[in-house]
Amino acid sequence: MTSPFVAGPALRIAGAASGPLAGLTFAAKDLFDVAGHPTGGGNPDWARQNPVPTRHAWAVQRLLDAGATLVGKTITDEVSLGILGENPFDGTPLNPAAPGHVPGGSSSGSASAVAQKLCDTALGTDTGGSVRVPASFCGLYGIRPTHGRLDLTGMMAQAPSSDTTGWFARDAETFARVSEVLLGESIPNVLPTKLVVAVDAFGVADPETAAALQPLVRRLSALMKDTREDVLAPPGLSVWARAQSTLQPSESCRTFRPWLERVNPRMQFNVARGLTLGSMISDGERYWADLMRMEARARMAWLLPPGTILCLPTTPFPAPAKGLPLSTLTPLRGRIQTLTSHGGLTGVPQVSVPGAQVNGLPVGLSIVGGRGSDAALVAVAKALA
Amino acid sequence: MTSPFVAGPALRIAGAASGPLAGLTFAAKDLFDVAGHPTGGGNPDWARQNPVPTRHAWAVQRLLDAGATLVGKTITDEVSLGILGENPFDGTPLNPAAPGHVPGGSSSGSASAVAQKLCDTALGTDTGGSVRVPASFCGLYGIRPTHGRLDLTGMMAQAPSSDTTGWFARDAETFARVSEVLLGESIPNVLPTKLVVAVDAFGVADPETAAALQPLVRRLSALMKDTREDVLAPPGLSVWARAQSTLQPSESCRTFRPWLERVNPRMQFNVARGLTLGSMISDGERYWADLMRMEARARMAWLLPPGTILCLPTTPFPAPAKGLPLSTLTPLRGRIQTLTSHGGLTGVPQVSVPGAQVNGLPVGLSIVGGRGSDAALVAVAKALA
Repeated sequence: MTSPFVAGPALRIAGAASGPLAGLTFAAKDLFDVAGHPTGGGNPDWARQNPVPTRHAWAVQRLLDAGATLVGKTITDEVSLGILGENPFDGTPLNPAAPGHVPGGSSSGSASAVAQKLCDTALGTDTGGSVRVPASFCGLYGIRPTHGRLDLTGMMAQAPSSDTTGWFARDAETFARVSEVLLGESIPNVLPTKLVVAVDAFGVADPETAAALQPLVRRLSALMKDTREDVLAPPGLSVWARAQSTLQPSESCRTFRPWLERVNPRMQFNVARGLTLGSMISDGERYWADLMRMEARARMAWLLPPGTILCLPTTPFPAPAKGLPLSTLTPLRGRIQTLTSHGGLTGVPQVSVPGAQVNGLPVGLSIVGGRGSDAALVAVAKALA
Repeated sequence: MTSPFVAGPALRIAGAASGPLAGLTFAAKDLFDVAGHPTGGGNPDWARQNPVPTRHAWAVQRLLDAGATLVGKTITDEVSLGILGENPFDGTPLNPAAPGHVPGGSSSGSASAVAQKLCDTALGTDTGGSVRVPASFCGLYGIRPTHGRLDLTGMMAQAPSSDTTGWFARDAETFARVSEVLLGESIPNVLPTKLVVAVDAFGVADPETAAALQPLVRRLSALMKDTREDVLAPPGLSVWARAQSTLQPSESCRTFRPWLERVNPRMQFNVARGLTLGSMISDGERYWADLMRMEARARMAWLLPPGTILCLPTTPFPAPAKGLPLSTLTPLRGRIQTLTSHGGLTGVPQVSVPGAQVNGLPVGLSIVGGRGSDAALVAVAKALA
């Protein structure tokens, strides 16, 4: 199976007759409510416990109101717990930019549908990297907005202190149009002036990936008045990732526990393993991770004042091959999370832009700014195109 | 779904033209190899890693050679890890003696097929109670033989130091005929003479179940020269059960680990949780449990010399309703295991006989003897009928 859409009756809901997105089509990850259609959540036993929604999720309604037409719901990793996009129940959506390789997840179907040109944009969610990673692997624009900025009504929760709604597009122009609607803010004409190149993050990437991103970094730098190198995470990106891998599973386990106990759902083994291990994290570890989160947020505020942005590789390598064993995937997943955990930990916005390749496979460059700088990051992505 | 058989092409393999079981039909739990048919193991991703078997399992071949005809493979709890018989992938086989209630597991389909009169006997496996529990819940004769007595070639392993091949029948006569073939020993005419009533085990059962079994206990006692009350497990049946719940998950986790890592299979949540928790049991806990196993075996040898048998409730209550949440099932499962763990822990044989009911639902009385007393237990079951 390689279709990016979840099985079921064909779904098409026309957008408003006029509006800033009139003429565009979009898809929504199967974590967003669409009235009259069950929200599947990527798991065969998720919908069983929930009534069919009677209202559209906020983001779906927002796009419809702006004139975009919904053309389908897309495959997600099970209950958004996955970063690679392999779902043994719904199938692994095709990555048209890297056939034979994973699309990335958990917003796998949304990225795949946009990359396959089956729609112009698509809604995803990003808790630990679920928009940024598939954007990188599929060669798309993708955004994880500032945490808390968008209304998440009707979006299935995972770890609420990190959950965000994001979106994808193939080109910067469409990306900016959709971003204006969902952010509710014009994309500015004035760009930030200072760039920080995160040397620690480039050090986590494969050398080939770091090298492949250099032309994009140089073009980005050329748009700025000032460029300097610095570390993103002084204690180590792996230390921040460890804090986030304490907080996020603790929260997701609280989110899903009533369902697990009541329904005893079918799941792929490693998702169930993750939830089981998450349930065993001690209060002591959580307290430590909460303190680390405070310090990481302070670091971001100090490093990224208004007018300053930072760049890093979105992922440390391009899309891995499909069907690798867990013993190979687990360390790869750990390296990916080392580059993505700052998002869920600190809540800052991040845009991944396409434009680089390693052995013919896409890999994205990410631009990060301080909280609330979402529109500025989209402006940079547009200027870079 | 309530069929006891696994999906797939109809399966029928005629037995030898003559033999002690000529004219009988049998089914085999989907953990036994049947040449030319994949062994499904109750999980949609088990067969993927194994070639289709080219030889019948030893027990299947033994029954065919004795003249019995194979009429199907039966549903099992996932990779034999379950005691209730609810399989969300293959379905929960009907318990015709208790509709709306579970059949018991993991040999759920084998018990159901015999109880539904779709065959005369059926092969199951019993590591932690997987023949005894469905025999009790479905109102059948069922045996867990002495550990190590039968050739387990072609039977999927779970925890090898506790795994056994068992079987079911509706009547004592058929049960004895099949037992003679699989044990390779005549059922004796002379019965044991001494009965121990396990007061600790009756104390673990619901009072209604203990009371319902009293007529059977009295009939059993009437066959003996001498009856006395004693405890089965001086340290506590729950202490023995805890030792077995250390040893068995440690072993099953070693058995399945390569598959989990390579295939990342779909599983119901609580099976994956059990395997994950099993992987975290420390060497220190295992050493303690191994010592407990030595002492439990010595207790059994001292308590049950040749000529002495023991009786206990097979299960503490009849079949629970289908579809209960994990929070309700987990403590029920714990109580069942308190009455079954001595089997896997000490390796003694046990026969469950039908004949009692609680609120119209069957519940079995079990007869236990020292190692190697299998045929004597079958003789007692026959005399009791």
